[in-house]
Order: sequence, then structure tokens, then C-alpha cells
Amino acid sequence: MHKIVIVAGNKFGNLFSLTTFGESHGLAIGGIIDGCPSGVKIDQKLIQLDLDRRKPGQSKIVSQRKETDTVEIFSGIFDGRTTGTPIGFIIKNKDQKSKDYSHIKDSYRPSHADFVYDEKYGFRDYRGGGRSSARETAIRVVGGSIAKQFLGDIKIQAYVSRVGDIKLDKHYSDLDLQTTENNIVRCPDSSTAEKMENLIKKIRKEGDTVGGIITCIIKNVPSGLGEPVFDKLHAQLGKAMLSINAVKGFEYGSGFESSKFKGSKHNDIFKKDGTTSTNYSGGIQGGISNGMDIYFNVAFKPVATVMKKQKSINKDGDEIVLEAKGRHDPCVLPRAVPIVESMAAIVIADYVLIKRANKK
Amino acid sequence: MHKIVIVAGNKFGNLFSLTTFGESHGLAIGGIIDGCPSGVKIDQKLIQLDLDRRKPGQSKIVSQRKETDTVEIFSGIFDGRTTGTPIGFIIKNKDQKSKDYSHIKDSYRPSHADFVYDEKYGFRDYRGGGRSSARETAIRVVGGSIAKQFLGDIKIQAYVSRVGDIKLDKHYSDLDLQTTENNIVRCPDSSTAEKMENLIKKIRKEGDTVGGIITCIIKNVPSGLGEPVFDKLHAQLGKAMLSINAVKGFEYGSGFESSKFKGSKHNDIFKKDGTTSTNYSGGIQGGISNGMDIYFNVAFKPVATVMKKQKSINKDGDEIVLEAKGRHDPCVLPRAVPIVESMAAIVIADYVLIKRANKK
Amino acid sequence: MHKIVIVAGNKFGNLFSLTTFGESHGLAIGGIIDGCPSGVKIDQKLIQLDLDRRKPGQSKIVSQRKETDTVEIFSGIFDGRTTGTPIGFIIKNKDQKSKDYSHIKDSYRPSHADFVYDEKYGFRDYRGGGRSSARETAIRVVGGSIAKQFLGDIKIQAYVSRVGDIKLDKHYSDLDLQTTENNIVRCPDSSTAEKMENLIKKIRKEGDTVGGIITCIIKNVPSGLGEPVFDKLHAQLGKAMLSINAVKGFEYGSGFESSKFKGSKHNDIFKKDGTTSTNYSGGIQGGISNGMDIYFNVAFKPVATVMKKQKSINKDGDEIVLEAKGRHDPCVLPRAVPIVESMAAIVIADYVLIKRANKK
Amino acid sequence: MHKIVIVAGNKFGNLFSLTTFGESHGLAIGGIIDGCPSGVKIDQKLIQLDLDRRKPGQSKIVSQRKETDTVEIFSGIFDGRTTGTPIGFIIKNKDQKSKDYSHIKDSYRPSHADFVYDEKYGFRDYRGGGRSSARETAIRVVGGSIAKQFLGDIKIQAYVSRVGDIKLDKHYSDLDLQTTENNIVRCPDSSTAEKMENLIKKIRKEGDTVGGIITCIIKNVPSGLGEPVFDKLHAQLGKAMLSINAVKGFEYGSGFESSKFKGSKHNDIFKKDGTTSTNYSGGIQGGISNGMDIYFNVAFKPVATVMKKQKSINKDGDEIVLEAKGRHDPCVLPRAVPIVESMAAIVIADYVLIKRANKK
Repeated sequence: MHKIVIVAGNKFGNLFSLTTFGESHGLAIGGIIDGCPSGVKIDQKLIQLDLDRRKPGQSKIVSQRKETDTVEIFSGIFDGRTTGTPIGFIIKNKDQKSKDYSHIKDSYRPSHADFVYDEKYGFRDYRGGGRSSARETAIRVVGGSIAKQFLGDIKIQAYVSRVGDIKLDKHYSDLDLQTTENNIVRCPDSSTAEKMENLIKKIRKEGDTVGGIITCIIKNVPSGLGEPVFDKLHAQLGKAMLSINAVKGFEYGSGFESSKFKGSKHNDIFKKDGTTSTNYSGGIQGGISNGMDIYFNVAFKPVATVMKKQKSINKDGDEIVLEAKGRHDPCVLPRAVPIVESMAAIVIADYVLIKRANKK
Repeated sequence: MHKIVIVAGNKFGNLFSLTTFGESHGLAIGGIIDGCPSGVKIDQKLIQLDLDRRKPGQSKIVSQRKETDTVEIFSGIFDGRTTGTPIGFIIKNKDQKSKDYSHIKDSYRPSHADFVYDEKYGFRDYRGGGRSSARETAIRVVGGSIAKQFLGDIKIQAYVSRVGDIKLDKHYSDLDLQTTENNIVRCPDSSTAEKMENLIKKIRKEGDTVGGIITCIIKNVPSGLGEPVFDKLHAQLGKAMLSINAVKGFEYGSGFESSKFKGSKHNDIFKKDGTTSTNYSGGIQGGISNGMDIYFNVAFKPVATVMKKQKSINKDGDEIVLEAKGRHDPCVLPRAVPIVESMAAIVIADYVLIKRANKK
Repeated sequence: MHKIVIVAGNKFGNLFSLTTFGESHGLAIGGIIDGCPSGVKIDQKLIQLDLDRRKPGQSKIVSQRKETDTVEIFSGIFDGRTTGTPIGFIIKNKDQKSKDYSHIKDSYRPSHADFVYDEKYGFRDYRGGGRSSARETAIRVVGGSIAKQFLGDIKIQAYVSRVGDIKLDKHYSDLDLQTTENNIVRCPDSSTAEKMENLIKKIRKEGDTVGGIITCIIKNVPSGLGEPVFDKLHAQLGKAMLSINAVKGFEYGSGFESSKFKGSKHNDIFKKDGTTSTNYSGGIQGGISNGMDIYFNVAFKPVATVMKKQKSINKDGDEIVLEAKGRHDPCVLPRAVPIVESMAAIVIADYVLIKRANKK
Repeated sequence: MHKIVIVAGNKFGNLFSLTTFGESHGLAIGGIIDGCPSGVKIDQKLIQLDLDRRKPGQSKIVSQRKETDTVEIFSGIFDGRTTGTPIGFIIKNKDQKSKDYSHIKDSYRPSHADFVYDEKYGFRDYRGGGRSSARETAIRVVGGSIAKQFLGDIKIQAYVSRVGDIKLDKHYSDLDLQTTENNIVRCPDSSTAEKMENLIKKIRKEGDTVGGIITCIIKNVPSGLGEPVFDKLHAQLGKAMLSINAVKGFEYGSGFESSKFKGSKHNDIFKKDGTTSTNYSGGIQGGISNGMDIYFNVAFKPVATVMKKQKSINKDGDEIVLEAKGRHDPCVLPRAVPIVESMAAIVIADYVLIKRANKK
């Protein structure tokens, strides 16, 4: 007998929220942005730009699947501006014909969600991961792009700072973040980017995959965003990042390095204007933004789908050998950059609205 | 003119939730646990034990303040068992006389929340941090201890795995976690514990503070906890940990190390019984528990209050020199162990209830 | 300067929820049902049937606007059954060309939301009421129709029990509810229905409108739905009904009449099988269903748009004379029957899931 | 085997919320108000005044139980003003010794929650109704009294407008509401009050109980409170009222009478200043306040506990005869007046905060 399945948790955010729906093999995926204030000028080309940064097939180092990912917005925008009402939208799935998935139908792919789906739900959508499919993140990018346009001067910029062993060893303030999009890896340092690109190409030839780190910077944040107890700004940023597929860790400001520090060294000394000489705090103190740059790192594991033979089991517990087919990403980092930015934008937009309740 | 202040975000959890109130200088702090199922045997001595593990004055290496932290439960427990109704409780503040805080009243202590409070709220409770005070975490420990008793066989055990440069270089499976409480550092390796203890003592003599890492292990977790999209199990665990004072980072399973891995090495190969040979996944795949041990690391920065002279500014932007008085912690890690366990317990209890909606 | 507008409150329900978007003059209206369990057989013809019961143009006594109201479902249903994932859907607006609304652009129509929109938001969508438009209720009917199909044997049936002075003076148990759809008023008593129909026709000729009452019966409700304090079952049913356009009152069981009763007469005496001889309680005691029929009344005011000259004011406070144009309803009751059923179904579905958390 | 019990739904409100705990036979009942802005002057005597208006033993026509109901506030108020942090408080139960309840332990009292508790939870707290006890409403009065003090010039005043057959046949605008507290019935018309008092005394002598209606007026409401779709202001007011024990119906403005009206008569014609000549709308149009007085009626059934022999059944389905003991209310209306005001105040406070998000 089948278990009852309810896939909960499809809404993110409080006052500014995104609710999403859709699987990769249905007619469309989509969402509703609720709580976006009126009067925000929306440039749909900017949304498309972010979708293009996320989509497969954009370069030689990502999955070669072709998806156009064009958003259709049904409500909440009039004459190029938000109206304050919910923004409903979809992205049609161009090619939802089921390919032949019979080779994995009863197999448990290692480090995928196959096994836990069977455990939790009694069945799984073997055609493409169902709600676990990374395709769902396209909807986050639409939500995030609209959130960014609401945020105006608050600028959110992410970039790839590590791929496998190749690490970008420069502080973000020594980089020209505007060059991030100049290469297909999205690393704002051309020589490091080249090394990363070569590593990803080599990994792909091996039929393997590789992990990495994305760093995200938020500039011009007003002070006062965040709540002191459970809803600390960085706690919600952390949840947002950890909800992205393949993410294994989050740190902000001095992060894990802070565990080695002494307090006398780690404290950020104030200057007369209220800014601080250092910014180990990462722009957040006691859970509340202090006006300095917010910066954080997000660790991604290597994609689980490798083009190599792997031992595994099937539903009946029999040992099998799996080998992936299709067009997969050797490294998701370049495509994940706009997803990181989008989730950050949704969090910041939400906290901007929460802060407004502190006004008469 | 004063700004309007609303300190939001005092509730954590969905079906199993904890709402807290109270400042260190009021009559009491307290909370309400809502959603704890009926019939759970509650041993108040176990709650007190966890409170004692958190309280100041428990050893030579923590703050020497004396607080007894005895919980008074008003409802929801009858004849030693929960009744399913909300559990209301308080911990009285024994010594809420205001000491002389005039020396910090108008000062901004570096890397404290003083500055952001003034920015956000227009004033702050200089007497002890208000809702930002770590005293609030005592209520989390009560909630967590009750959640642990609800969880029964699901065992949550945290320990200190790093203090400054001293790192416990053993995998948790090579440790006897039951020895964690044998030393005042709460590190389940006696020789490392001794080094950590000596380091903390040295740091205290210097009037300084030091950070560290707490590792937490959850055993006997049923598979199927967690939701595939925004409410991934590790995303909520991450938020819970990042909401603890002084936390700067969270990673689970292979964590930040995974960024260096290749997929062919990182994948956890299934054994015939559905368990995996390795556990880089950290017991969670696609946001859903798979029945293997969950383990994660939480990074703490050094306490901001140091017993050394520090340059800073006051409200008017004048340069001042600060020097802390009182009885502060040179290292919060030993006292934070039960807080980490408590927040983990509240998350797991919540997801156990959410999973039940998947039953007819 | 424009005020900032956020139209909040577009989600209804907790575990089983409906979030809606869309205005009558955009490309489409739509929604997301989140939390519908898997395995529910969905007959799209039944959804269309309920939409047809709500749509304008269905009979001579309602608005003669033509809208086909065909739902397009994008996700969450596969091979005719729900999958447990969110169900995203839209209804396209066939004719979203703006008619000439210049005559009301700056006018405040009496007892409409025009004035409060200007007060709250600083502007309003004069083209059709924006989110206040009754068109939004089509989405509720889709959500409710799916909820009904989830509910299976729990049967929800509403009917018109009053139009103006014409009152159906029979207890619901003396009616054959299956005859409700036999007439265009949706009153399950043919002679009363005829009187109501004649009254509505007369009212329309006068260019006037008229109010009424809808009665709703829910049969085969399991006992145990509802929570004892704030989330009493009838409290949420009441909120659901009062959220429907033009509703002015809600009563369940003995309702307002109970205020005249003595307790010795009002108490429902138990029979040996746990049912009660009378059912003044309306199937709910202490906020929790007891297994008897739930029944309640919903009062609707007359539609504010009348085809008569009315004095009013415009934005500048000048006195004006208004006269409505277009195809409006002389009485919304016949079309509101499926809306009442739908909101009831969403509430009951939600509480069915909430009850499941009470199982191990 | 016992079922699992979770008594959910102990929180009311969004930005301004009240969470309650406690049973009549525990040590204390209590609550947390979360979201009350800072700077509100709190006069604890006003809270006590409202508690005294609710408490038993206050006059000859209510239950003669003695409860002092003194609130102890632990946090969130400093120097007589709110601090913006959560306000935690309790009311001790003076006399929580269990009386002899053996006569009702296994009995199902008619029209009480006994039966549904056994159905839902598998057991019940026969000592005093558990969370269903009206004692819980004392906590709502504390929350409401603080909400009233936050609301300042927005004045909320309720009164008894019907007891059984005795109806106050005057419009509220023809009454001096300030005389409401001049008599023990809380009816602002002395001759009607006398009739009501006599009726209640007669009913009590008969060992019977009687229902009634409470009318509530809210003056000086700013326009713009309420959301157009699911969270209409009157929908939330309705839920709040229907969540009060013994309430069977809610209507606002023209209410159920509106069902008999024609639109041409019912529409509220604007005056040049934006106010309306009539106020059938009850101060709310399209779910949003328009600045006119809000008024609504709340219907209460007669108390189920009568001092007469009643047939009933016990757990085993045997027929029994019950006769109540103790000190019960012949009519709850006089004591329910501050409860109605309190729930209204909490709703209005919440929507005042929600409106603030519409400001930059």
C-alpha cells in the first residue's frame, strides 16, 4: 500500500515570500511572490538575464541540455511597475516528454534522494527528481531577480571562489566584482578563472564532478535588519543558502576561521563615523545588520551524478552497477551563482519589510 | 524622538515550537512549548541537569557568576507526563539589581550589539543586553531538554571539538561520546580536553577570549525527516544553530571539505541493507534524513567582552577607551554544548511531527 | 507621492493551503494548493462543474458577462491523481481589454472599496476592483473542488435559503438537497425557488439588487476536527465565510437564535450510540466536531452596484451622481453557493491534516 | 491504548500575537504577548480592572467562585512602559486542589466538550475542562487590556444587548456607553438592565441558564486596516469572536438583516468629507476599515451546565442521570464583555502593525 505523501515547505519568507510549484516533467513550473511593495520598476530583461545565468547549455563547462526558461508573468505588474498585489508567473517546460528512465527506475543512485524518497513517500518521481530537481531553482531566480529590483541600491553580487583545489586567494575588496560575468566560471579574477575552467574541463573528461565555494557580498545594507533572538539576519540567510541543492555549509564574516581567533584580535574597532576598521562581523552584530558589507561563503558538494560505473543497490536490495546517461553538470558552481544571489535577495527584502513595522 | 521598537522573532518551530520571553534584568525569563505530544514521561531532574551544564559558575573555566537557574513549570505536565497542552514555565532571575553600568551606558562595545541596537531601536537595554543576552538561551535548554525526552531513542550528543588552535583530530566514531561530561571542557578525549582547558586558563589570565567549534551527533534518526525544497532538514538545523549567540558558521556531513572533493569519491555507496559504507552525506540526502547518523559542526567566534583596554567610540562619536568589568566567559564553548543539543532537539521534534501528516 | 502598497493575506489555510494571485484585467488569475496529500483521484470535470456553477452568464438571473473559466493545471497531478506536491494552476482572463472606466475613475461608488483603497493605498485599480474583484473567488472554487475530492465521503452541500423577504422555512433535514441544482436559484424547494427567482427578476427590472442567506451542510464529518482554544473549527469556518465578498454574518448550529434559549432546552441530549437527539450544537462542541452534521448560515448583503442614479462624491470631495453601466448581478446568492462550499472544503481538509499530527 | 494528544492553536495574531498556556487545575495560567511596540504606557490597574470585570464572584448574577486573578508580569515592561520585547506573564491558580469530580469522571455532560475530547484525544481532563475551560479567557483579557493601552484613541466598548427574550432595542448611537459599567449586567440602559438582571435571577432560581448577545463598538478607527482577500478585517474579528467559549454567531454592520435589504437602500451614501450618512457597512468596506465606527454583534448560547437533572450517557454508553454541583454562571454575558473587547483589541492592534508595512 502506498504511503500518503505531502511535500510541505514550498513557501519561503514572511512578509516578502515566494511559494513555488512544479516538476521538471509537468507542463510548467511557477510561483507566487507575495508581499512585494507597489511602485517597483520591473525590467523583465533583468529577470531573463538572471535566468540565462542559471540555465543549462550556457557554456562548455555546464550541462548541455537546452532549456530556454522564459518567464510568463500573469499578475502584479502593470505598466512596468509592481502593483503591490501577488505576482503569479510560470516557466513552461519545453520538453517534458519522458525519456527512457527505465535504467534508474528501481535503482538507488548514490548520494541522490532516491532512497529517502522511497523511505518517506513509498514512491518517487524517477523521471527527473520531482520537487528535488534543481529545475525548481529557476523559480527562485525569478523571485530573487524581482527582489533585487525592489532592493534598488542594496547590491548583491556572488562569485565562485573555489572549485576543487583551485581557490581564489584574494579578499573580495581586492577584486573587481564587475568582472565576474567576464568568464564562464563566474570568478572575478581572470587567471584563477582560467585554472578553474581547465579543472572543470578535465573533470568532465574523466566523467567525474567537483565541488566548490560561492562567496556572496551584499553592499549598501541599511543598519537595523534582523531580529535579536531566533530570526537573526544571518540565521535566515543560512537557512536560505542551505535550502539550495547540494549545499553543505554556510559561514559569514570570519566564519569557521573565527574559531581560532582571540577576542582582542577579532573585535571590530569602531571609527568615529560608526563604521569599523575591520569587518570580522561580516556586517551583522547580534543578528542585526550594522551597515558594513555583509559577506558569506556557501560550500557545494560535487554533483552526485557521475559518468562512471558505480556500485549501488536497487529497491530489492540487490547489488547493481549504475552508469549515468544524459547531459549533466560536471560542476554546478557557475550556474549556482544567481541562485545564491536570489535567495539572499529574498531574505533581505523580507527583513526590509519586517523593519518597517518598527515605524509609526 | 524615540523610534518604535518591536523585537520580533521570539518563536522557533512549527508544529513543535518554543516561544521565549525575558531579559536578564527583569523578574524572570520564560517560555511556552506548544505542540509537545501527550504521554511523554518528563524527568525534571534531566532538565535541571541540562540547565546545570549551561549555567555560569559551573567550573573554573567559565564565568564565575552565580545563577541557580531552577525552572518552574506551570502547565502541560501532570503526574510526570506531558498532557499535550502548552507547557508554560519560567526561570526566576535571582539577582536583577542593576549593577553600575554607567561606564558602558553611552559606549559602543566593539563587536557587541550596542551600536546596531541604537541604530535599529533608538535605545538599548545597557543593563545586560536585553533580548540579546545569552541568558535567553537557558529557556532554549528547557525547551530542548523536553524535546529530547520526547525524542526517546533519537540521541543527540554534542561536544567541543576545537578551542582556538587546539583541535580534536579524531572522527566522532572513534570517540566514546559518553566521556564528554568527564571533563569541564566537554571534549570526549581526555588528552585534548586537558590541552583545551590549559589554553582557556591561559587565555583568561591574559584577559582575552577564544573561539572554537562544537560538533553534534544525532543517532537513531528515522529516515524521512525533512522536506525537499525550502524546509530541508539541514536548512532548519542550520538556522537553529546560527540563531545561537556568537555562532559564525554551520556545516553538516562533509561540509566545507566537500568543496574539494570529486563526486566519484564523495558519493556514499549503498550496502545491501540500505545503509551506506561512507557517510559524507551526514545522514541527510536531498534535505531528508536517510537513517544514518546526522553530524554537523558549529563555529563560535571568541566572546567580544575582553578584560583588556580597547579603543572604541560613544554615542556622540567621541573616541573612548573601554575596559570590561565583571565575571565573563573566556570561552563559551563548554557552556554552549547543551544549547546546541537543545536547538537540534527542537528541530528534530518538529520534523517528527511534520512527518506524521504523511500518515492517514 | 504614492503610498507604498502591499496587498497581504493571499494565503488561506495551514497544512492544506491555497495561495491566490491575479486581477480581472491581467492575463490570468491563478493559485497554488499546497499540502494536498498524494493519491487523491482528481476528476477535472468536477472542477469545471463547480466553476460553471460560479461563472457569470449561467442563467437569466445572474450577470450576463461571458467568461468560460477553464482551469489549466501545471503540476501536482499525474495520471489523474495528486502526487502530494504543490498544485499550480491558472484561469486565463479571456477579455482583459479595459473597457471605458473613465466614468468611475475618480468616483467613489457607495459601499464599494473605492474609498478605502484610496485611503489605504493612495490609488486603486479602477478597471475592475483589482484583488477585491469577485473574480478572485474562481480560484477559491478550484481549490475547494480539489479539497472536496480529497474529502471523499465528507459531503459539503450549500443552498440558498433566503433572498430578500423570501425565506425557505424548512429545516435542512426536511429537504432533498440533491434537488438544489434543479433550479437556477439553487434552492432545494421548488416552490420557494420559484418565488426567489421571480423576486430576483423583479429586482433586476428595478435596476436594484437584493441580499440573502446561504445555508451549508457538512455530512459524515469525523469527530475530532478542531482545536479547543483559538483554532476552534467553527472559528476558522467563520473566518473562511467572512472572507467571501459581500458576507456580513456567520452563525452555526442554533446561531443567533441560541441567545434566546434556556440551557435546559438547548442542551443536546446523548443517545446510547453517542449521537444526540437534537443538534443545536451544529456538529461542533468546544470547537471540535462531534460527528453530527455541521450546518451554518452565511448572510450576504445586496450587491452595491445598482442600475439607478445614486448621489456620491469624487476624489476631490465634489458631489456627483453615479449610474452603473455593464452587466451586473442583481443577486449574488446563486453564484455564491459553490464559493461557500469551496471555502468550507478547504477548512475541513486543513483540519483533517491537523488531526493527523495526533497520531504516532 | 491512549491516543497521542497535541492541543494545537494556542497562538492568536500575526505581528501582534498572544500565546497562552495553562489549565484551571495547574499552578498557573499565563501567556506571552509578542510584537507589542515599545513606549506604550502601561497602567497595571487598568489590566486589573478588566480582569475584575471578567472574574467570577463579582456580583450576584454570576458564578460565586472566588478567584482573585492577579497578573504577574515578568518581562517587556520597564519603568511603566513597554520595551518592545515579549511580555511574559502569569495568573496563579489560587485553589487548584481537585474537588471531587468522580461524579462526572466517566459521564458525558450534554453540550460540553467531554464527548469530543474522548473521541479526539482518548482522555480528558475531567477536573475542569483543561484547555476548554473558560478560565483560559483571563489570559486573553490581559492581552487585550495591553492591546487597548497600545491602541490609545481607538476606543473599544462592548455591552450586553440581549439576555434571552430581553432585548435592548436602541441603536448604539442613542446610548451613553459610559454607563455600561453602572450596572452588574453591563447594559448601558438602566431599565433594560434591570429587566435583564431580574431575568437572570429568575433563571438561576430555576437552576437553568440563558444565552444572549454582546454588541461591540470600535470608535476612532483609522481607515486602511484590513486586507482585501482572505484577511479581511471583519473576517479576523469574526474568527476572534467565534474562538470565545459559547459563541454561536457573529455579524457586523447590517449583519443578517442585510439579507433582506435592497442595494439602493443599503448603500452608504458619502458626504463631502468622506464620511457616510448611514453606516450599514459597519465601518468596513471590502474588508478594509473606512474610518466610520465599527460595530458587531456576538451571539452566546446558554451555558451548558444546568442545575437540573438531565439524562445523558457515560463512556460505556449506559444511560445516566446527571445533576451539576458547584458554583456556575446562569448567564455568561456580563463576564464576557471584557473578553469580547480584548479579542477585538488584539485584532485591531495586529492590523495596525500590518498596515505599517505599507510605509517606507
